Amino acid sequence: MAQPGKVILAGTIAKGLLAEVAEGLSKLSFKPKLVGFLANEDPAAKVYADYSAKTCVENGFEFDLRKVSKEDIEEAILAANIDDSVHGIIVYYPIFPRSSRQDQYIQQLVALDKDVEGLSHKYIFNMYQNIRFLDPPTNKQKSILPCTPLAVVKVLEYLQIYNPALPYGNRLFGRTITVINRSEVVGRPLAALLANDGAKVYSVDINDVQLFTRGRGIKNHKHEVHEQEGWTVEKCLPFSDVVISGVPGSSYKIDTNLIRDGATCINFSSEKNFDATTVKEQASFYVPAIGKVTISVLLRNLLRLVHNQEESRVKAATKNHVEAELKSSEG
Amino acid sequence: MAQPGKVILAGTIAKGLLAEVAEGLSKLSFKPKLVGFLANEDPAAKVYADYSAKTCVENGFEFDLRKVSKEDIEEAILAANIDDSVHGIIVYYPIFPRSSRQDQYIQQLVALDKDVEGLSHKYIFNMYQNIRFLDPPTNKQKSILPCTPLAVVKVLEYLQIYNPALPYGNRLFGRTITVINRSEVVGRPLAALLANDGAKVYSVDINDVQLFTRGRGIKNHKHEVHEQEGWTVEKCLPFSDVVISGVPGSSYKIDTNLIRDGATCINFSSEKNFDATTVKEQASFYVPAIGKVTISVLLRNLLRLVHNQEESRVKAATKNHVEAELKSSEG
Repeated sequence: MAQPGKVILAGTIAKGLLAEVAEGLSKLSFKPKLVGFLANEDPAAKVYADYSAKTCVENGFEFDLRKVSKEDIEEAILAANIDDSVHGIIVYYPIFPRSSRQDQYIQQLVALDKDVEGLSHKYIFNMYQNIRFLDPPTNKQKSILPCTPLAVVKVLEYLQIYNPALPYGNRLFGRTITVINRSEVVGRPLAALLANDGAKVYSVDINDVQLFTRGRGIKNHKHEVHEQEGWTVEKCLPFSDVVISGVPGSSYKIDTNLIRDGATCINFSSEKNFDATTVKEQASFYVPAIGKVTISVLLRNLLRLVHNQEESRVKAATKNHVEAELKSSEG
Repeated sequence: MAQPGKVILAGTIAKGLLAEVAEGLSKLSFKPKLVGFLANEDPAAKVYADYSAKTCVENGFEFDLRKVSKEDIEEAILAANIDDSVHGIIVYYPIFPRSSRQDQYIQQLVALDKDVEGLSHKYIFNMYQNIRFLDPPTNKQKSILPCTPLAVVKVLEYLQIYNPALPYGNRLFGRTITVINRSEVVGRPLAALLANDGAKVYSVDINDVQLFTRGRGIKNHKHEVHEQEGWTVEKCLPFSDVVISGVPGSSYKIDTNLIRDGATCINFSSEKNFDATTVKEQASFYVPAIGKVTISVLLRNLLRLVHNQEESRVKAATKNHVEAELKSSEG
């Protein structure tokens, strides 16, 4: 178990997740295949693609990087959607750097049952609405969560900020968490996810502070959002058991003095939002980066997809069988 | 019929569409209800909401404007989605002016069968892919097209740029059209729509020119996009039978000298992109604005939704009936 005051590296947390992935993989009779689509010349996307390829292969998955032109990306994704040998699809963005909306159109093209990043509207909707399965009331197919927010959840589980003594779904009850960043890709979904799990979450961005909460006694099924008029990050920090930051600028530093003694500090920005020296004196745990957890979560999602695909086949087969029975009894 | 050289007003074109709508409405035993959601203080959105309310009521529809807070918009839409007394839903944007992505999340919340603006991913996908029905091969439920691009199509049909002597789906074959504006909301879908109907379309924005085409002899089922390296709007205009412009800036003016003699010029910007005097000398038709056509198309879409909803009910009833028959034959 991690020691208080300690720096916890993502690699350490990832180990447990990868072991879980290896166990799931060992039960399969085939190697799941992830297809990555690269349709830009962005060096950062290339680095990420190479890194995901390496991690996939090292952990026993197949990875197929497909370089396509912007003009062909739509058809290429549609072809992979209906190719039974493809189990998961990841697309490296930006494809249309001048039109984020066009990229979002592309995002929605990936088949729901192959969307390893959990970016389909249905998944995002389920996440915000705190709906955990795709097939209620059977509840055999889990909804996929976006990788980076889920990686933060996994970090908090590892550090037992999620209290295993509480019932599943409410394990953050009693925690106050500040999330600095409210992007649609990470910060806002993360705040919603943590609030849905029972935390009181202050979501901070450059313009304002919002409170995400399921209400007093976590009485609601899902979070609500309330504007905190006049609040700033400085007001949130002293209340927070956990401070999670993802501010892109290198000049941004959190005022460590305001952080509660013994708080948990997690940085998901590529920049260091916490001052490494002072945060270690103050925090019980400091997680300086989460990249390796994120990629482990990607593989975990891929296994979930394989499981969901199998479940869909079983359901379809059962349905066909019942219909055939009905028809034969008719004749 | 319109005279060459003439200015054609949107109101004139709208008349025919509204007559068509009135005929459709007369066949119904109830008044379809459109619900509008206003969750901002944007005066332009308010004006548009009031205008759509007025047009709805004048044309025999029910309109219910619901003012909700940003915090409640999601639940309010979900409630309208499952309310049988609501036939169509329109949301006035921006709701989150600082996050277009959050607005797009909201857009995808509207139920497919109530999305009067045609903004659901499924509709946009069908439009780009040139898929015209929701229920192939039965083909009883038409896919909904976004209002502004469809309004331009209706203008071109009115002016017989769509050649009725050609088969449906190919009626722009032989036409070259320049569309100045490539936003995801109007310009790009419009270019795709016109190309899918057989035209050769130059799509122009501040960065480049792209050719949207189904290829030589319109041999492909749907359009492809080709970058026109080094091209500018000036190179496109002399080739174009139709010039359609939607540039927001008041300083932007198309060089009328370059427009082909007898071309058709359509402006969908709120600014005047064509010089009113010179364009009239040059063009066969000049349509200075299309707003009234757009709102007529909205009502037309609403009627389509009502039709599709009815069709879904018939299908569900038939399916239930067949299943009941099968089950009773079993006993």
